[in-house]
Amino acid sequence: MEEDKPVFEGEVWVNADKISFVGTDNEAAKANIYKHFDREIDCKKNLLMPGFKNAHTHSAMTLMRSLADDLPTQKWLNDQIFPVEAHMTGEDIYSLTKLAILEYLTSGITSIFDMYLTPDTIARACREAGMRCVQVGCVNNFSQSLELVERMYNELNTEDDPLNSYFMGIHAEYTCSPELLTKFSDLVHKYKAPVFTHIAETKAETDGCIERYGMSPVKYLSSMGLFDFGGGGYHLVHVNEEDMQILKSRNMYVVTNPGSNVKLASGIAPISDYLRHGIPVALGTDGPASNNCLDFFREMFLVTGLAKLRCDDASAIDANEVLKMATVNGAHAMGLNDCDTLTLGKQADIIMIDLDQPNMQPINNICKNIVYSGSKQNIKMTMIAGVIRYEDGRFNIGVDPHDLYLEAENIKTRIRHELGR
Amino acid sequence: MEEDKPVFEGEVWVNADKISFVGTDNEAAKANIYKHFDREIDCKKNLLMPGFKNAHTHSAMTLMRSLADDLPTQKWLNDQIFPVEAHMTGEDIYSLTKLAILEYLTSGITSIFDMYLTPDTIARACREAGMRCVQVGCVNNFSQSLELVERMYNELNTEDDPLNSYFMGIHAEYTCSPELLTKFSDLVHKYKAPVFTHIAETKAETDGCIERYGMSPVKYLSSMGLFDFGGGGYHLVHVNEEDMQILKSRNMYVVTNPGSNVKLASGIAPISDYLRHGIPVALGTDGPASNNCLDFFREMFLVTGLAKLRCDDASAIDANEVLKMATVNGAHAMGLNDCDTLTLGKQADIIMIDLDQPNMQPINNICKNIVYSGSKQNIKMTMIAGVIRYEDGRFNIGVDPHDLYLEAENIKTRIRHELGR
Repeated sequence: MEEDKPVFEGEVWVNADKISFVGTDNEAAKANIYKHFDREIDCKKNLLMPGFKNAHTHSAMTLMRSLADDLPTQKWLNDQIFPVEAHMTGEDIYSLTKLAILEYLTSGITSIFDMYLTPDTIARACREAGMRCVQVGCVNNFSQSLELVERMYNELNTEDDPLNSYFMGIHAEYTCSPELLTKFSDLVHKYKAPVFTHIAETKAETDGCIERYGMSPVKYLSSMGLFDFGGGGYHLVHVNEEDMQILKSRNMYVVTNPGSNVKLASGIAPISDYLRHGIPVALGTDGPASNNCLDFFREMFLVTGLAKLRCDDASAIDANEVLKMATVNGAHAMGLNDCDTLTLGKQADIIMIDLDQPNMQPINNICKNIVYSGSKQNIKMTMIAGVIRYEDGRFNIGVDPHDLYLEAENIKTRIRHELGR
Repeated sequence: MEEDKPVFEGEVWVNADKISFVGTDNEAAKANIYKHFDREIDCKKNLLMPGFKNAHTHSAMTLMRSLADDLPTQKWLNDQIFPVEAHMTGEDIYSLTKLAILEYLTSGITSIFDMYLTPDTIARACREAGMRCVQVGCVNNFSQSLELVERMYNELNTEDDPLNSYFMGIHAEYTCSPELLTKFSDLVHKYKAPVFTHIAETKAETDGCIERYGMSPVKYLSSMGLFDFGGGGYHLVHVNEEDMQILKSRNMYVVTNPGSNVKLASGIAPISDYLRHGIPVALGTDGPASNNCLDFFREMFLVTGLAKLRCDDASAIDANEVLKMATVNGAHAMGLNDCDTLTLGKQADIIMIDLDQPNMQPINNICKNIVYSGSKQNIKMTMIAGVIRYEDGRFNIGVDPHDLYLEAENIKTRIRHELGR
């Protein structure tokens, strides 16, 4: 994923949580380093690459997977999702986040950009399971306060907790009053912090904001000073040319969520336009209530497929660009500048792609194989911070997956009972 | 997949190539049948269901996977696909079809509706590998004659070859002269045969036909008598209301190929409209040069996702409807009326879905889990005509997969050399 550095045959060495060597066999033989490894893995000509960065998700919504599909969006949200969320505890969210982590690992995802209700229990789940997690604030009128966001910003951005970090953020324009946004803007300026938020996901949202404030959501939130230190937006489907100029001038990231956008009929984001404006695009699954899975192969195919449809052009957004979104751009959006490529000194967030499968044969072009033919079945190994968390179908996150499946069923049953359903 | 018969816990028995019992544990205990099995499989509460029916593909195009993506469609076809095809031999197609069969098995596909250049070597590949294959003629001005189609129709529709069968078909309106179509129509009437063809895939194709003959492709081919005995069309993206009436009145099937349609920027087929007209819809991957993989989970998600986008309605085409397309409708379109459901006396074309994976947990709704969260990773077993051809990642098709990978590389190298590339 480094510019001008194509796929090559060689070795990658890992020392503790970092990459200590990347090079050809010849270079490795020449490297005057005492080669004593705890473990050597013969990759058998499979592909090593940086792990995927899931730049937008709500992990604990695994609970609502397949709970309420094929419904009109407002009915889905108001009748199904919100009532269930109101009954979820911090400990529920802890277990359900771990369930999501299992799924991330099967898809080669090594970092998540997670927005949900109880940041402390999410951070604990990720710390224990070894998932790299950047959380983002979810300030809104109803459930998450400025105080919590400020506390988490300070608590999770420390060197003692290398797997966890935290960005400031709000849920969305339409769930925050102008007064709340003004106070939030003060907080953002106090810390000179970038801000991420759901924005311009649906036409109704964009139209509503224009009706309320005479400005698009991007322009409105920018006018409140929320993007004075950069950041980015999740979804960004319904935008205009002026919005693009704002995003560009604020050095913001677009995090696109194509699986969610099709399933909820939100629309097709103008990805080719963003790229033409030089606005970096990262990829996210969104939460499992709206997608419903956490599969980066689906997202990678969709981001280019939908762009091809939207542009009426089969050459729109080639596979290399998609892989860059899924790895390098995601890492940079999430502030993980040491997790973007397989380079000496970077974090060892590495996946192995199994090329010894029929969907990868013949090998005309490895990058295109991954984006257009790849599936979770091709994830042979997922390593985060130098620790293998998934290998040949087996998990290593400190808990038996079946305990997490059972716990999810128990939470489901309990909440159904509480809701009298 | 039977009407009014929900998922239940029980047993399925197979005798030779047929299902000999389906029922609950209690029913099995009561069934006064001597239970002596060569093998008993504890399915551990995983799901058994009918295999997926891939109702449109060109298997041997595995050779062109990732060869020529991200190009404008005409450039893709004329500069890349056609020159390579001109150098493929029948034996190449034999090996490349077997490579595709490996991939079908990983995706739970138990029948294919295949259109390609050398029907005899395709039939041999499927016979040897145990894949159920319905082939379709590909009459056109350049490469496949009426004589070949008539011969294959008679040779492959015999009881001695239970895995192979054959439909009449043409490549497409735009590759057949009116004279050829008239002669083909005579052949169709001689055998009273249903006809399948590529049709209305792109806007350019539909517009071109209207320009040439003053009629849409559906109306034109129908006016030539091609659909007098039913059949169906692959793609059917660019159609009008009159076309729908014709399809309905001729009892035709729509075989939709959403993966290919997005990747080649062909458009979104009006699936909800077909269903409203009572026209049955089946699903296909199209060939691996245009998709680029043979993954039914991708197609299932896309068919409903794209319908939701097209209709601007998250409730468009629910998951049960998608599963019906992927199994029952596909079977019926392909004339495989004994492969549609898990019912006593039907062919044992059965797959096991692994529910013991994080993407299937919790189980709020099994059908929605399969369509919205499922992946090839969830295919634990694929059985065709009572023989397990894929189980826990291992293949049983009478040849080592690595030999097929190597052969595909060799064919690739040879043809590149012949083309001077």
